[in-house]
Formats: sequence, structure tokens, C-alpha cells
Amino acid sequence: MSEITVALVQERNRGDADANLAQIEIRVREAAAAGADLVVLQELHNGPYPCQREAVEDFDQAETIPGPGTDRLAQIARDSKVVLVASLFERRAPGLYHNTAVVFERDGSIVGRYRKMHIPDDPGYYEKFYFTPGDLGFHPIDTSAGRLGVLVCWDQWYPEAARLMALAGAEMLIYPTAIGWDPADDDAEKARQRDAWVTVQRGHAVANGLPVLSCNRVGFEADPDGVGRGAQFWGTSFVTGAQGEFLAEAGSDEPELLIACIDRERTDAVRRIWPFLRDRRIDAYDDLLKRYRDE
Amino acid sequence: MSEITVALVQERNRGDADANLAQIEIRVREAAAAGADLVVLQELHNGPYPCQREAVEDFDQAETIPGPGTDRLAQIARDSKVVLVASLFERRAPGLYHNTAVVFERDGSIVGRYRKMHIPDDPGYYEKFYFTPGDLGFHPIDTSAGRLGVLVCWDQWYPEAARLMALAGAEMLIYPTAIGWDPADDDAEKARQRDAWVTVQRGHAVANGLPVLSCNRVGFEADPDGVGRGAQFWGTSFVTGAQGEFLAEAGSDEPELLIACIDRERTDAVRRIWPFLRDRRIDAYDDLLKRYRDE
Repeated sequence: MSEITVALVQERNRGDADANLAQIEIRVREAAAAGADLVVLQELHNGPYPCQREAVEDFDQAETIPGPGTDRLAQIARDSKVVLVASLFERRAPGLYHNTAVVFERDGSIVGRYRKMHIPDDPGYYEKFYFTPGDLGFHPIDTSAGRLGVLVCWDQWYPEAARLMALAGAEMLIYPTAIGWDPADDDAEKARQRDAWVTVQRGHAVANGLPVLSCNRVGFEADPDGVGRGAQFWGTSFVTGAQGEFLAEAGSDEPELLIACIDRERTDAVRRIWPFLRDRRIDAYDDLLKRYRDE
Repeated sequence: MSEITVALVQERNRGDADANLAQIEIRVREAAAAGADLVVLQELHNGPYPCQREAVEDFDQAETIPGPGTDRLAQIARDSKVVLVASLFERRAPGLYHNTAVVFERDGSIVGRYRKMHIPDDPGYYEKFYFTPGDLGFHPIDTSAGRLGVLVCWDQWYPEAARLMALAGAEMLIYPTAIGWDPADDDAEKARQRDAWVTVQRGHAVANGLPVLSCNRVGFEADPDGVGRGAQFWGTSFVTGAQGEFLAEAGSDEPELLIACIDRERTDAVRRIWPFLRDRRIDAYDDLLKRYRDE
């Protein structure tokens, strides 16, 4: 199977987990009807983006893995016979939470998870309060739709994460994400930010000769405390091929089911003429393991 | 001095070193007249791109550093009082050659050099025959125009190189380069290649919060043996800011003196809101030092 059909579910928050999962179920069915082998959901799709404030009660949104949430997602994957990449606020133990991607096989079984390794923290995105940095490292997850390099949101700014997935044989890079504009920024800054976000991920495709799938949430979400300005999630979910070329691109304002066809033989063809892995100077990269080269 | 003016000399091959250096002298004077503090030349600007074939007589194009070539470049830098980034086919010893960038201060002194670390080899670009991989590592060069992260051509595909320069305090990334189309490729493939080349470098700007200056040669150069199809160097030299946003962009067909103004305070501002260096998982990057993670 050289070609696989992928679908990205770009959605706005519909309220609680029941409402969001009901909508996800509809979208996954649509995706399956369109022939999708693999469906990717946005980051923390079961609720509102929870990190606009630091509030202990928001830990109530977290869930165990496995748990009722993954049971429901497993059912959705099984019903539509798709590989499903989901994203959950994981309660691992009292006081120990992660931002975790979970991958389901077409039969509904959980085949792997990835705990977000790079955790951001900036105004309106107070993730360091909620999420312990991942401790599972960077390992692709094998599925019937391919060996998936699943990463999450802030990871998308880190070439190291993409490279480690490529070096472990990932066949594509997948980013569930939740990124938006500060409504106070002017239009030029907003355009630069969104373009930078697209560009750095396309750069990972190019540098690693791998398709990239990035699924972002969309729509405005207010700070529950009314203190912050809220976040205007910018959608713009996209799929690229192994040269970073766009295969599909969503808009920035509305929910959208984005479908694309990925030709996996193309990855090998691109890497034959641009064999970047061949020439890496691993003898000279030691300082990548330093915080800063000022010693 | 927060703002500096930079100039990129995108040129076609004018024949021999005398002819090319005469043209470079004119362009550097124009750049200085426009207020340039820093002028970047394209890769191996003194002659035709030498690697379209593997021929021992082509080593005659190489030169010692210092030598008559750097004396002439020093004079050009001194006359125009600019920091100059040049690119030479370095003869280090009999049978030992490098692809080397040389940086001149405004007084004509050589302040540093960088020997291309990643060496390509593909049809029409047989660099592994000519150039020993660099042995100086990835170290920025301090000048009166800033701390320069000078890399060369094929390095531009490697996020590792850009990151190591950023971690060592580079204030901008600079790529003299020589990349072109195979005339046999169709227009869609040509467009993908050029766009990938631009995108991966803009990605380095974003991931590292640094301006990028990339200076490419332009014009068609035939294989001297008439065996290969020749190379259509695609120009498209550009300068971006620290979010990867274009500050200046040259065309793909003609020589051009590209001038841009870089605001160095902007780098700090961008890194405050996108503090990627803060969150690198250096505890989990060890495998970046492996060729492949199949052990």
C-alpha cells in the first residue's frame, strides 16, 4: 500500500467532552466515508483549551489512559476502521499530569502513546503549570497506516524532535496542536506568526524528507476568568509531502475536515536525490546536548 | 548599533577569477554606497561552479588562504570599509582541499574562516571528489557587523548546523550557496525544489529566532565536458528576519545586488515571546549523535 489517505479534523470547542466527542464521531465517519486510513485530531480535543489560566479545578478535565475517554475514542476508531491519533489531558497520578497523544488501531486497540516533551509557557498558554514534560522520549508508533512520528504542538518548533523521529524510521510527522493569536497583536504580527508556524513545520518535512500532518483547533476561546484576552485559534491545518509541498490546507476561521493522499514511495524517491541523512556530521554535533555553548 | 544594513551579491559566473573579482569589486562599492555594513558573496564566486565533473585539472582553481585571492578580497573590503563574507576553493595541502568561507573585517584583515562541514554529492554536484569535509566545527565569527553564523550551501539543509551556531551566540545565519535546477526536471519539480530550499532556511530562522542571509549564484553553467546537462542556478537570494519573514528577495534569472536592513533588537524581542531555547530537552537528544536509531 504505497498511497494512504489521511484526514485532519480541524474543530472548534463544542463545550464538554460529550459534545466534542459526538462531533469527532461525526467527522471520523465522514473521513472514513472519504476513504481515510488515518485520522488526526487536534490537541486536547475533548474540551476547551485548558491553559489560559492557572486553576487547580482545571485538573478535573484530566483523564486516565486507558479510561472512559479512550474507551469512547476506541469505539470511534473501531466503528470507522481507521487509525486514530487522539490527544488527551492525561492524569497519570495525583499531582502528575501529561499532555498525551494516544494512537488507536483500526480495531480500537491502543497501540502507543506519546507524552509531549517540550512544554510551553507564555501568556494564555500556561502549560508548565499543568503538564509534566514527557518521559517517554521520541519514538514513532507502528500502525497499519504506517510508522507514525507523533509529536504535539510546541514540539513543532523543535528540529531535534522531528529529526529524532526521522532517525527512528518515522514515515510521517504528525502534530496535534492548539495555537492561536493574541487578539491584541496587529495583523502584520499575526500573519508573521502563522506563517512562521507553517514554515518551521514545512522545514521539518524538507530537512527529513517526510510528509507532515499538522491539525490545529480553530475559533475563539475566552479566558474563563475574563482576565486574559482569550485565544483566537488559527486553524490552518495542513498536510505536506516530503519536499514540504502543500498537499492540503485548511482555512483559519472554520471547522474543516481536511483530506489528503500521501504517496509513501515518494519519500524514498525524494531521499534518493536529497540524501540528507547520508551527510550528517555526527562527529561534530556533541554540543546539541548542551543548553548553550558558553562553557 | 541595533540596525545593520546587509547586502548580498547574486552574480553569474563572469569567467575567470579576475573577471569575477572585478565584478565583485563593483558590486561591493555599490553596496557600500547604499550603506552596507556587511556584504555576502555567493559560494565559490571566483570561478565557474567547479564540481559538474570529476577532473583533476580542476584542482588548479583552488587557492591558498591567505593568498593572492584573499589579498584582493581584503583590498575590496578595505576600500569599501565593509565586513565581507567570501567563499573560496581552498588548497590546504597537496591532495587536501576545502570549500571555505572567509570573513574579512572592514580593515581588510581576515577575522575567521569556516570550512563547509556537510559535503553533497549528486549528479552535477560532485563535491565529495573535491572537498574534504570541514574540520573546524560550527563556530560563529565575531566582526564589527555582529557575530556571524557563517555556513555554506549544503549546510543549509541541516537544522543541526543552524542550531549549533545559535547555541554559540550567532546573531544571524549566513549561507553563501550555489544551487540550481537540472534542466531536465519539469516545472513543478523545479518549483518544489526552490521552494523547499527557501523554506528549510526560513525554518532555521524561525526555530532559532535569527535572521537568515542566503546568497545564491544565478545563470546557466554548462558541464565543461558536455556530458552533463549543466546547471541553471536559480538565484532567489534572500534575507529574512527572526520570524522567517522576508526582508528582501531576489529574482531567479539575473544578477542582483540585494540590500536589507536587519534590526538586531528584534531578535531579542522575538525570542522573549518564543523562547525556544528555554525548553530544549537536552536530556533526551542523545540519539542525535547517531547515524540512525536502528541499534
